[in-house]
Amino acid sequence: MPLGERNGDKESRYCGVETDFSNDMPQLLEFNIKGGFDFVLATLVDPAYRPSLESINDLRSGALPVAGSDLVLSPAQWSSHVVGKLSSWIDLDSDDEILRRDSEICLKQEVAWASHLSLQACLLPVPKGQSCANYSRCVNQILQSSNNMQLWLRIPLRKREDDDLDDPSLGGDPIDSWETWNSFRLLCEHNSQLSVALDVLGSLPSTNSLGRWIGEPVRAAIIHTNSFLSNARGHPCLSKRHQKLLTQFFNHSVQVVISGGLAHSVPVSALESANSNASNDVNSDLGHPLRTYLYYIGYLYQKMDPLPEQELYELSYRDFLQSPLQPLMDNLEAQTYETFEKDTAKYLQYQRAVSKALLDRIPDEKASSVTSVLMVVGAGRGPLVRASLEAAKETGRKLKVFAVEKNPNAVITLHSLVKLERWENIVTIVSSDMRHWDAPEKADILVSELLGSFGDNELSPECLDGAQRFLKPDGISIPSSYTSFFQPITSTKLYNDVKVHKDLAHLETPYVVKLHKVARLAPCQPVFTFVHPDNSPSKDNQRYTKLKFDIPGDTGSTLVHGFAGYFDAILYKDVHLGIEPTMATPNMFSWFPIFFPLRTPVCVRPDNPLEVHVWRCSGSTKVWYEWCVASPSPSPIHNSQGRSYWVGL
Amino acid sequence: MPLGERNGDKESRYCGVETDFSNDMPQLLEFNIKGGFDFVLATLVDPAYRPSLESINDLRSGALPVAGSDLVLSPAQWSSHVVGKLSSWIDLDSDDEILRRDSEICLKQEVAWASHLSLQACLLPVPKGQSCANYSRCVNQILQSSNNMQLWLRIPLRKREDDDLDDPSLGGDPIDSWETWNSFRLLCEHNSQLSVALDVLGSLPSTNSLGRWIGEPVRAAIIHTNSFLSNARGHPCLSKRHQKLLTQFFNHSVQVVISGGLAHSVPVSALESANSNASNDVNSDLGHPLRTYLYYIGYLYQKMDPLPEQELYELSYRDFLQSPLQPLMDNLEAQTYETFEKDTAKYLQYQRAVSKALLDRIPDEKASSVTSVLMVVGAGRGPLVRASLEAAKETGRKLKVFAVEKNPNAVITLHSLVKLERWENIVTIVSSDMRHWDAPEKADILVSELLGSFGDNELSPECLDGAQRFLKPDGISIPSSYTSFFQPITSTKLYNDVKVHKDLAHLETPYVVKLHKVARLAPCQPVFTFVHPDNSPSKDNQRYTKLKFDIPGDTGSTLVHGFAGYFDAILYKDVHLGIEPTMATPNMFSWFPIFFPLRTPVCVRPDNPLEVHVWRCSGSTKVWYEWCVASPSPSPIHNSQGRSYWVGL
Repeated sequence: MPLGERNGDKESRYCGVETDFSNDMPQLLEFNIKGGFDFVLATLVDPAYRPSLESINDLRSGALPVAGSDLVLSPAQWSSHVVGKLSSWIDLDSDDEILRRDSEICLKQEVAWASHLSLQACLLPVPKGQSCANYSRCVNQILQSSNNMQLWLRIPLRKREDDDLDDPSLGGDPIDSWETWNSFRLLCEHNSQLSVALDVLGSLPSTNSLGRWIGEPVRAAIIHTNSFLSNARGHPCLSKRHQKLLTQFFNHSVQVVISGGLAHSVPVSALESANSNASNDVNSDLGHPLRTYLYYIGYLYQKMDPLPEQELYELSYRDFLQSPLQPLMDNLEAQTYETFEKDTAKYLQYQRAVSKALLDRIPDEKASSVTSVLMVVGAGRGPLVRASLEAAKETGRKLKVFAVEKNPNAVITLHSLVKLERWENIVTIVSSDMRHWDAPEKADILVSELLGSFGDNELSPECLDGAQRFLKPDGISIPSSYTSFFQPITSTKLYNDVKVHKDLAHLETPYVVKLHKVARLAPCQPVFTFVHPDNSPSKDNQRYTKLKFDIPGDTGSTLVHGFAGYFDAILYKDVHLGIEPTMATPNMFSWFPIFFPLRTPVCVRPDNPLEVHVWRCSGSTKVWYEWCVASPSPSPIHNSQGRSYWVGL
Repeated sequence: MPLGERNGDKESRYCGVETDFSNDMPQLLEFNIKGGFDFVLATLVDPAYRPSLESINDLRSGALPVAGSDLVLSPAQWSSHVVGKLSSWIDLDSDDEILRRDSEICLKQEVAWASHLSLQACLLPVPKGQSCANYSRCVNQILQSSNNMQLWLRIPLRKREDDDLDDPSLGGDPIDSWETWNSFRLLCEHNSQLSVALDVLGSLPSTNSLGRWIGEPVRAAIIHTNSFLSNARGHPCLSKRHQKLLTQFFNHSVQVVISGGLAHSVPVSALESANSNASNDVNSDLGHPLRTYLYYIGYLYQKMDPLPEQELYELSYRDFLQSPLQPLMDNLEAQTYETFEKDTAKYLQYQRAVSKALLDRIPDEKASSVTSVLMVVGAGRGPLVRASLEAAKETGRKLKVFAVEKNPNAVITLHSLVKLERWENIVTIVSSDMRHWDAPEKADILVSELLGSFGDNELSPECLDGAQRFLKPDGISIPSSYTSFFQPITSTKLYNDVKVHKDLAHLETPYVVKLHKVARLAPCQPVFTFVHPDNSPSKDNQRYTKLKFDIPGDTGSTLVHGFAGYFDAILYKDVHLGIEPTMATPNMFSWFPIFFPLRTPVCVRPDNPLEVHVWRCSGSTKVWYEWCVASPSPSPIHNSQGRSYWVGL
């Protein structure tokens, strides 16, 4: 019985329960499903079993002492309702050689059995102690073999902060369990079938360190009943920070699993009420000892705010890599124009900018006498022409508009638009590339929308430099400037999607992508700025910037898979437009961020600044970026000479 | 005039001189060649030139103010006698943008000019300050373009030790100039056309830190005249440590270049004598101010010990990667047998071992009555049969020998050997695989030579386990045990030779190789040991070892390209045989070390131990190794499932 209905959630609507070993699987499953849980985390093999205790013959003849076979439950039941839990005694890095060999044999036997049952996923026991190289190696061997079952590595969500070094509960565990996960997955080469199941404990580490997990393939959050608090009425509930974490998990398709026994004694009466609040199907799930915990999780799920309209629209784009458009080289299609024209928030900003510019340029007393020349360079199907005319109307200024467009198909549409709107006397359509057009007169205002997700990446600088010829010396360019931004991120999903192509080119190409399963490790920093008109003697659109990111100390170590790129543009004076998270224009959907991958993820330890270098280079026929990490450990120079990615001039 | 004649040296016999800018190249060249130098390190472009000071027009029309064109000197002269020195003012990481742009323009212009002159190499100026990302990027772009000229990056040979933190002479320079080189070459992806020219200064860093450079592509050692001392007679000479370093350089094909002015005033009389000692051509080189330094370098070169016989024989194998033999799967050829049979040092050890075993087993009084059964398993063309019979003769013990060999071609040779040597009554030839032979009786002594460079890598354990069936319970196996060893190394040469194949397989394959341009970073550590006969109940030849290498603190940071593998075998009691450097058997040439590469070199900082894990795995048809680095930064598991390298059973 899923926690509730909500658009866009895949796994996260489901809640499972961890169970003890039982060799009556049908009964175990029925009891828990009736109890309202969607699946069980069930031990597959008798915990008492040890290969080394069996005599050779037994091993040959005898069968594995399993919880239940594919005859007591159908493969369909197994795969839809059971996540297989491997023996938790397994310790592949023990100094005890016999235990180590037993562990290796069992790990392989149990995984083989699980895939025979066609389970969708198995839970791997928590790595014991610091080193897990041999454990990783065995799991890696399993991952190498074609089997497509998911393996969830169980990791306790803990990090020893400087101020609780003496906390005994953290005992001999590694200072930071994320590091255990990190070495494990590095040893397994980021295999996409390897993911994480987090044990959520009573106390949570710092918010920054928790943030790292959003960039990791976390499939399940296992919450132990004694991690719950009791509310006034004795009901289990979670601390504010736990609630916040869970909401984040729900939003990132992480399933919840409840573990442990009843730790809160709840008066029956109270139960009924709680029950009827939270559950629409009362009778079926009376009797399950953990139902109050399930209700509470369902309650948290249901009280989440619904996804805003735009988010819903963008769901299918989450973490989906797209190659950036090349509007200069290629001609956009009608469909593309239409989509972007719908972005009213964006064109409203343009209208505001043009209005302000007109008011600054033409005092009221001259409003009726003077006609300003406004040129839309890259007019497409006309949205900026419309916005400009709106601005003229709203300010009562007179306009003469040139609509310059290089795409002959868009020009046809422009002509019919002008006829349709009766703009013949105001708007002149020019079918030409702004870089070569020989203008009949000079413009007061130059309006363009040539910006890409990274600002200059669709060659706005080169185009506007070309158009500047026909802007009056005191003329205005809208936008008047734009700046790109860089931010280091962790995103196992994006890195794997790039890596899957097994070639250099994809690892050196920036992708437009709606970032979702991403940990943002430090505040954005500005990269390149371009100003228009550019009156410097030697125009040069090549750029070089060195950035130093300080990742907050309490985050712990992090793995940087690459950089998120954004832009912000000043259209005119205080009217701006952009996607840089801290100042993004609301309800604007024309741009997703851009992702610059790293060929090899870079591990950054606390208090080690991350030094990054970015170049904008240009040749006679193309413009491209190069980037590298210089510190803590130097990466190769990415995309040298634009060998993998470039934008055609 | 080369420093002298010596087998096996390529570049290192030559000595160059660094010169100031002169636009009379013919005169400059003639003077220095007459002066006894083999080549000049000459500035190509007038140091006063700055692109930003030229007006645009000049740049268009005017030519680069070069030292001399390809008309004043023929391309042949340029390429054989001139290494081009790029303007030393070039600073690509300066905060001064104009200087930075000038630097970029000049770097490209001068390199282009140098390759127009078809020079073999150019000297890149010393990187200024700590960060050199932009410098690396420009050089990397040059390296990417097809041009095949060598670029020597000039690096001062200095490392600030803890105890001279206050040495002013080291000023703002990086603590360790090796690190500058390391980031530069990592940013340039280990490009094989990028190498090093070291400025050898008056004071040298610790011996361990110097050792690192042996693993780097050092092409030249530039020695400044004021790094020389004066001997009693006022002649320039070098400190003992400098001499040692130079000898090492000579042995690794590093050319010497003398730089600076005359810093030692030498009485003419003295000169003449020095002169006639060191030079066989007196008249030609009178007059060159730096001749005494040249004589001294020549003198150091000539007083080196000649290469020992074996080294000469192995010259052509230095740093040459070979795939290990698979004698079990493949049949060796006569040529191969013949080569290895020449290794008398090795068979002498076997003879000693057999003698000792016979004496232990048969007391003198039984010498004439008892006949021991000795089986040579893997007899090849008979060398161990011969050694065993020699042992019998030398000890006066009686032997009955079985020569078991699976290669039918070798068996033919064995038969003619036995006839030739009249061994018919003593030696029985068995044409069979020892793992399947059904022996007529049991052996007192089992003799085999199935060892590879890494001991067990030619499957000696599996073969001897198979043969053990016909060894008496109290029988002796020669060898009685063997152990493999691991040692972390720096070797840019080997790493590049592996990387050049651009595939995963080569990066995960161990290679047999005569290690030469290699820095050994820490003492060897034992990996796997096998003992014969193996009387453990459950025979298992799978192994797992975890190694922790501590690199000496005064070495500084290092880059680990992989691991050198060796073995040592105990033939019988105190008679051993092996190639582990500290206890290698003298004059034995049958085995070169084995090299286990790392897919991505691992940087190890001082006081960070290097943790390595090695596995010997086996399946039904093959045996293979897996290895990884777990710390300081986890590498992928190499050769998982033997996907890239395995030995067939």
